[in-house]
Amino acid sequence: MNKKIILKKRPVGFPAEDTWALQTTAVDEPKEGEILVETQYVSLDPAMRGWLNDQKSYIPPVQINDVMRAGTVGKIIQSKHPNFKEGDFVSGGGGVQQFYISDGKNEFKVDGHAVPLPKYLSVLGMTGMTAYFGILEVGKIKEGDIVLISGAAGAVGSVAGQIAKIKGCTVVGIAGGKEKCTYVVDHLGFDACIDYKNEQVYEKLKEYCPKGIDVYFDNVGGDILDLALAKIRRHARIVICGAISQYNATEIKGPKNYLSLLINRATMQGMVVFDYATRYQEAGMQMARWMAEGNLKSDEAIYEGIENFYDTFKRLFSGDKRGKLVLKVS
Amino acid sequence: MNKKIILKKRPVGFPAEDTWALQTTAVDEPKEGEILVETQYVSLDPAMRGWLNDQKSYIPPVQINDVMRAGTVGKIIQSKHPNFKEGDFVSGGGGVQQFYISDGKNEFKVDGHAVPLPKYLSVLGMTGMTAYFGILEVGKIKEGDIVLISGAAGAVGSVAGQIAKIKGCTVVGIAGGKEKCTYVVDHLGFDACIDYKNEQVYEKLKEYCPKGIDVYFDNVGGDILDLALAKIRRHARIVICGAISQYNATEIKGPKNYLSLLINRATMQGMVVFDYATRYQEAGMQMARWMAEGNLKSDEAIYEGIENFYDTFKRLFSGDKRGKLVLKVS
Repeated sequence: MNKKIILKKRPVGFPAEDTWALQTTAVDEPKEGEILVETQYVSLDPAMRGWLNDQKSYIPPVQINDVMRAGTVGKIIQSKHPNFKEGDFVSGGGGVQQFYISDGKNEFKVDGHAVPLPKYLSVLGMTGMTAYFGILEVGKIKEGDIVLISGAAGAVGSVAGQIAKIKGCTVVGIAGGKEKCTYVVDHLGFDACIDYKNEQVYEKLKEYCPKGIDVYFDNVGGDILDLALAKIRRHARIVICGAISQYNATEIKGPKNYLSLLINRATMQGMVVFDYATRYQEAGMQMARWMAEGNLKSDEAIYEGIENFYDTFKRLFSGDKRGKLVLKVS
Repeated sequence: MNKKIILKKRPVGFPAEDTWALQTTAVDEPKEGEILVETQYVSLDPAMRGWLNDQKSYIPPVQINDVMRAGTVGKIIQSKHPNFKEGDFVSGGGGVQQFYISDGKNEFKVDGHAVPLPKYLSVLGMTGMTAYFGILEVGKIKEGDIVLISGAAGAVGSVAGQIAKIKGCTVVGIAGGKEKCTYVVDHLGFDACIDYKNEQVYEKLKEYCPKGIDVYFDNVGGDILDLALAKIRRHARIVICGAISQYNATEIKGPKNYLSLLINRATMQGMVVFDYATRYQEAGMQMARWMAEGNLKSDEAIYEGIENFYDTFKRLFSGDKRGKLVLKVS
């Protein structure tokens, strides 16, 4: 039997538990040209919240009564597709369910033995790709830049900041709580980290970035984006990767300091990782190399049981995690 | 005697009349290496409002008791500088006064006979340069782009839109009032113009830009910026040239639709014309060529009398003008 999480209603504000429902159905048979995958791990991402809204975005919304969309990594248990065989591990977009059928078009074979499977959802998956292309291609970091990263202990921010360190930047993180900040500095190697829950962010920005900020990699939006705008230098680049502080808001807070872009001839640019699909392999190989050299670390916070999807989803927004949030469903 | 407008106090919100005072002093004598200029025309720009605020910007604020900063065009009436002679016309930053002394460093000789002097404050001055580099270098327009211009009947917007037309774009303006919109379409040659005072801007955007907007040249900020953000296409460029709707606001309205930048992988970039100073000559020659060919028009709304500075300044924000606002002070 296949347990799956179904979208039942469109939430307003923070999703209530009845936004989704757990359903059990028979496992389907793959047809000719298809594979049957047993999902092992499901990726949990703040972007999921956006997929629930019935509005134009970079991807269509999840439809009511459809399986909740999610990136996954799993094992092929039956193959009628010439390019895949039983036992192969694949990453794909199987959604929040234990089994799925695919025609293989969006499945990528991964080495299930070289690195732990959850890494293919974090640093070697969309999360890592987002950090890589966001900080390098949109942020256009160069040696000596002062780089500020919000959500610094999170899945994307932690990787983006480490890449900036590898490239010779001074990197300051922003995270919630002393424990996370210690993790960001001592474990990930950022130069400093501001605890936005217990410190005056703007005062600390002045202390850690006295000359201002060249690149701000924004995962949070809201007040922090405004404070960063107030400290950017001339020709700064602001990478709009996400806005977790706003995803559950019924009214978005626009950055009132946006005219700092004018004063500083600065750029604010949005990004969606899919645009870099042709270069995932290049990025993945580079990231694997950095990991092997010990210069890039990734942590996954792994929770278990598909029935715990909602509790795990809530952790995306509670700040109660470090690194990448993953749900083991097999 | 030299009549001049002096900054007396820093305004909060819209400047009251006692923000400035008219002062009369003796005309100074130029020293060796200096010139004495009799100002003929003073440029009035919305940016002036920003120069009154005591805060970090792209240029220091005007100091209390200093002459109000302004671009000017005038005639040299006495020269002790080897590169200038009496009777030369120069454009420079003489401020709102009838005479000024300069060491010549920021004075540019202009041909006072080829075109009327006020053109050197509008299409051939900072205003035109802002339009030129803003639409071409920051907006990166290319043939076939759908270009939206706010403040379309204004000094910068009118020129930016005409350049976009010359480059083969579809150009839609936004202006206040039927008369201005008629001017923008019939006289300047824009494809359409939305009357934000009497029409539903978003409905009209959908009508005139059914496929969305590739480039938005923003002179106004506020609600119009948000509506434009809601209609941008993938990889759109938003040029933050100004925000006249916000200059007198005590609290800036941030663009709540800024996450459209993410969805559409779009860029919002600020600009200051000074960065292109080494290319003013190239741009000026190109603009003069377009004017000679009849493809680029510029209008100046000329008021007279330095004692009417405040009334004229108010017209910058009342919407009661077309093209470039200029004050004749000689």
